[in-house]
Amino acid sequence: MPELRKDPIHGRWVIIATERSRRPSDFVPEERRTIGGFCPLCEGNEDRTPPEIIAFRDNGTPPNSPGWTLRVVPNKFPALRIEGELNREGDGIYDKMNGIGAHEVVIEMPRHHETLITLPVKGVENVLLAYRERIIDLMRDKRLRYVLVFKNHGVSAGASLEHSHSQIIALPIVPKRVSEEIEGAKAYFHYKERCVFCDIIRQELQQKNRLITENISFVSIAPFASRFPFETWILPKIHCPSFEHMESYLYGQASQILSDTLKRLNRVLNDPPYNYIIHTSSFPELDRDHYHWHFEIMPKLTKMAGFEWGTGFYINPTPPEEAAKYMREAK
Amino acid sequence: MPELRKDPIHGRWVIIATERSRRPSDFVPEERRTIGGFCPLCEGNEDRTPPEIIAFRDNGTPPNSPGWTLRVVPNKFPALRIEGELNREGDGIYDKMNGIGAHEVVIEMPRHHETLITLPVKGVENVLLAYRERIIDLMRDKRLRYVLVFKNHGVSAGASLEHSHSQIIALPIVPKRVSEEIEGAKAYFHYKERCVFCDIIRQELQQKNRLITENISFVSIAPFASRFPFETWILPKIHCPSFEHMESYLYGQASQILSDTLKRLNRVLNDPPYNYIIHTSSFPELDRDHYHWHFEIMPKLTKMAGFEWGTGFYINPTPPEEAAKYMREAK
Repeated sequence: MPELRKDPIHGRWVIIATERSRRPSDFVPEERRTIGGFCPLCEGNEDRTPPEIIAFRDNGTPPNSPGWTLRVVPNKFPALRIEGELNREGDGIYDKMNGIGAHEVVIEMPRHHETLITLPVKGVENVLLAYRERIIDLMRDKRLRYVLVFKNHGVSAGASLEHSHSQIIALPIVPKRVSEEIEGAKAYFHYKERCVFCDIIRQELQQKNRLITENISFVSIAPFASRFPFETWILPKIHCPSFEHMESYLYGQASQILSDTLKRLNRVLNDPPYNYIIHTSSFPELDRDHYHWHFEIMPKLTKMAGFEWGTGFYINPTPPEEAAKYMREAK
Repeated sequence: MPELRKDPIHGRWVIIATERSRRPSDFVPEERRTIGGFCPLCEGNEDRTPPEIIAFRDNGTPPNSPGWTLRVVPNKFPALRIEGELNREGDGIYDKMNGIGAHEVVIEMPRHHETLITLPVKGVENVLLAYRERIIDLMRDKRLRYVLVFKNHGVSAGASLEHSHSQIIALPIVPKRVSEEIEGAKAYFHYKERCVFCDIIRQELQQKNRLITENISFVSIAPFASRFPFETWILPKIHCPSFEHMESYLYGQASQILSDTLKRLNRVLNDPPYNYIIHTSSFPELDRDHYHWHFEIMPKLTKMAGFEWGTGFYINPTPPEEAAKYMREAK
């Protein structure tokens, strides 16, 4: 069973893989790391993944066989386990619990060389609808407190399989970075009685110099205090705490702007490695007024080094105003 | 002038390089990034760095000429500028100030192919004494609030020059990750009236399964909630808030254990890329009881990916108990 351990100084949790742990010789130097070879995510290889949890399929095709447009399967090498109890316990001054949680893989399309950029918007919408369905289902488990959807595209961004996919991890705690964001937004709300994200959107739509693109319901911006070159956020224009509880028609709009934004990134940076995450409130009834779900897209162009680790403080060599200009002009 | 900008949600600051900003074509894909060629840090090339701030030299050799064992010079491409005023200002809901600060390079040795591992302990001590001298001098500048010493070794760890060097950045604010650590330690002290770092050391010296090595005054451990495989901390055994205000004899002891620990890392992981940082209290009079300076050494073996960015939560595939065992056994 993996272990969740808490740092006694920062209160930061980590997942320690105690089962198939990696030895010194397992770490391959970065320049020799590649991905490729046999692909367990391709159509026809359904028996090489754990059985599917949900799939969008042609009528009449049986589960775990060809004929699908999207599948969600458990991760074959999960960071957390769904079976068991949390068993919180102490060890002297330290705190730990069992690594209970879910770790799933969203196989976004059946063909190996498609990506979210080559897929029609309707296909991207299917991906978002699969995220929604899995988040809602996972949050029914009373042991779990947060669900993170994320995507690693490219070796440098941490992808270990080439076939386009995203991942979903459900956790028994609200992670620090998320609770800090919710607390920060709450503090702003208490001071101003306005949502900080709504205020950001209002200012960005007025100033326009960090605006990348928009549609009726969403806006794509380079954030004022971008940590990374070409960091991009996508937010609903109308206040909305939770990704998984939007009005149905908004998923189409969200897919359109996500697809458009990724295409622009691709043109400007020539298929960069990137990560994206969805930040959503898992408890929309509690965070109704002050939280506002969003995508954060982070192209992997620079390296975290000692300064960033030591301070939590980033040096960004490309002002967001310039990044946004390149992105706006990309056709 | 670079800009310091504050994220309105998290309160996190970033440094935005506004002068020589990087365009899309400036980002070289990771697999093609190399370092090498002409070395401005080698003995004999003193005219290729800005004039030295301090140097440890043979008697009678003039500044900025050969004959040194260590030099500290301003960074030729500084992230922050020493001249000017902070000029804090708002821009709608956003906050910013001028990027005032210092950015220096510690050239640890004159010869290109030496490293902290091949250097005698006395040479490592010189490096630590240079850190001390620069921290004390920089903290005399009343605009500055924190000094971070860090080292990036290897391309994957962010080094852009091969010649062994460390960096010093002085900041006009206390960075979030440092103030969180100080606040966490303070909260623990208020609750228990003991230093959390002293408690960690006591438990590690008792349990011994995460102990790597020790000498009379220092201990080297794999922390209980290690974020990365083979993460290692070095701490003084006796309570001590500030690196730069230790008793003089302790710098020799610190050098001995740093050298020993880096040699073990090198043997176990075959010259891994790594970062290290020194966390020290800049205000030892305020943090006397609860803060405890330390080194954090982070070999760069895994990648930050979407999950880590989205949660601030790390998945560590090597339990610290196993890492410590490999490190203890490395001779």
